[in-house]
Amino acid sequence: MTFSNTRTVRIEWGDCDPAGIIFYPRYFEIFDASTAMLFERALGMTKFQMFKQLAFGGFPLVRTRARFLRPTRFGDDVTVKSSVTFGRSSFDVEHQLSLNGNACVECSEKRVWVLRDADGQLKSHPVPQAVLSRFGK
Amino acid sequence: MTFSNTRTVRIEWGDCDPAGIIFYPRYFEIFDASTAMLFERALGMTKFQMFKQLAFGGFPLVRTRARFLRPTRFGDDVTVKSSVTFGRSSFDVEHQLSLNGNACVECSEKRVWVLRDADGQLKSHPVPQAVLSRFGK
Amino acid sequence: MTFSNTRTVRIEWGDCDPAGIIFYPRYFEIFDASTAMLFERALGMTKFQMFKQLAFGGFPLVRTRARFLRPTRFGDDVTVKSSVTFGRSSFDVEHQLSLNGNACVECSEKRVWVLRDADGQLKSHPVPQAVLSRFGK
Amino acid sequence: MTFSNTRTVRIEWGDCDPAGIIFYPRYFEIFDASTAMLFERALGMTKFQMFKQLAFGGFPLVRTRARFLRPTRFGDDVTVKSSVTFGRSSFDVEHQLSLNGNACVECSEKRVWVLRDADGQLKSHPVPQAVLSRFGK
Repeated sequence: MTFSNTRTVRIEWGDCDPAGIIFYPRYFEIFDASTAMLFERALGMTKFQMFKQLAFGGFPLVRTRARFLRPTRFGDDVTVKSSVTFGRSSFDVEHQLSLNGNACVECSEKRVWVLRDADGQLKSHPVPQAVLSRFGK
Repeated sequence: MTFSNTRTVRIEWGDCDPAGIIFYPRYFEIFDASTAMLFERALGMTKFQMFKQLAFGGFPLVRTRARFLRPTRFGDDVTVKSSVTFGRSSFDVEHQLSLNGNACVECSEKRVWVLRDADGQLKSHPVPQAVLSRFGK
Repeated sequence: MTFSNTRTVRIEWGDCDPAGIIFYPRYFEIFDASTAMLFERALGMTKFQMFKQLAFGGFPLVRTRARFLRPTRFGDDVTVKSSVTFGRSSFDVEHQLSLNGNACVECSEKRVWVLRDADGQLKSHPVPQAVLSRFGK
Repeated sequence: MTFSNTRTVRIEWGDCDPAGIIFYPRYFEIFDASTAMLFERALGMTKFQMFKQLAFGGFPLVRTRARFLRPTRFGDDVTVKSSVTFGRSSFDVEHQLSLNGNACVECSEKRVWVLRDADGQLKSHPVPQAVLSRFGK
């Protein structure tokens, strides 16, 4: 079972390069925030609150792949649909970014759930059941 | 007479630095987009459409000043109120960024209206009356 | 035959997030600049000069894949080795980012060579022989 | 007495906007890194090491002012000269960014020295004498 969230993002002037189209690293900023928003919607708390309330160290990216199908430009209001599928201590997120119903970017990311141990080191850890249950698992 | 616009912006994880607070250059990205939004609201067209419909070369910044009063953090939904005052070929924008009613950043910027001449060079130019009139002048 | 270039990049405070490690979209900014530098080294001109001297429209990304093996932190001086392999109107670049000899990120990108036609539209085009020959092909 | 440092920075394609010139928030990223480099040169340690070796909480910005005199473009190698003057628990940095000897941006910033107290809160604190002495004071 997957859980998904859709949001709208404005492509800004400062996101675009001298070719007049988005500078592609900006897409990854959008996708990172989209993953955070997916968790916020499911858990009912912001990522900041997750750090406070869970013994949480974040969910760093271990792999990403993206295909760029059509460019987007400043002033475009794009739609980002993000869907998550959980493994044991990792999860996959698929992002589909589209403009007026036309796919522009497809991205898949794999992230790991990490905790911060007593020494401050990040360690991977099974995604807590309390988190999974908010995603309907 | 001034014209103002207010919008809400989410401070994202990727906007923040190892101190856990916003990395201040991100504020200027927010303010640049806020100035664009101010014009979009007044003119009823995006900045992209302004480039198409006006013989427009942009409104580059010539000076900015900012005071940072309180930090903001990822997950904060901040309010940005932006007000413009027009000169002849320049204009001033004041941005007030606040969180829960508390002022966090005050920024003032001076920009010039420029056109692109036949050689592709940017030249300052009086703000067109068609633009001013949309701001009630 | 491949052509490669190696450069050193400082990871800055503002590249890092509240976890104290680099915010991964910054890697793609580094890789984009590394591809530009690879062409600069081979062609003996900056990307800006390429736009002036070639009827050049850029080399937009059509696909990227990255694996993140070890994090990097502000103050780290990382090494980026970039290698290009040419197809007909596209090329592949492999980037290996390492710290003190340890691989941190592996990235592969596919880009297309584009020209700007009379209407200003971007069209893919075979990589010019004059370019290929500077890469020893 | 002031202490200064000069470095060269490449303006990248991704730093520039659809007008083909640098997107001005990128200048503040450059200036922030220039201030860090100034301290690195004087103290003989990176900002990362400062966090480890001093009970250091950073030197957040409280005010900045910048004037933009000439635009810069991707491929430009600009020179940034940064000079610091110390107060008691604050200091001022002047940045002069130039291209081929022509001034492009002038920026002045005021920062405070902060420590992190037992509750993790940031508090302003006199700049340590051990730091001042490395700047020749």
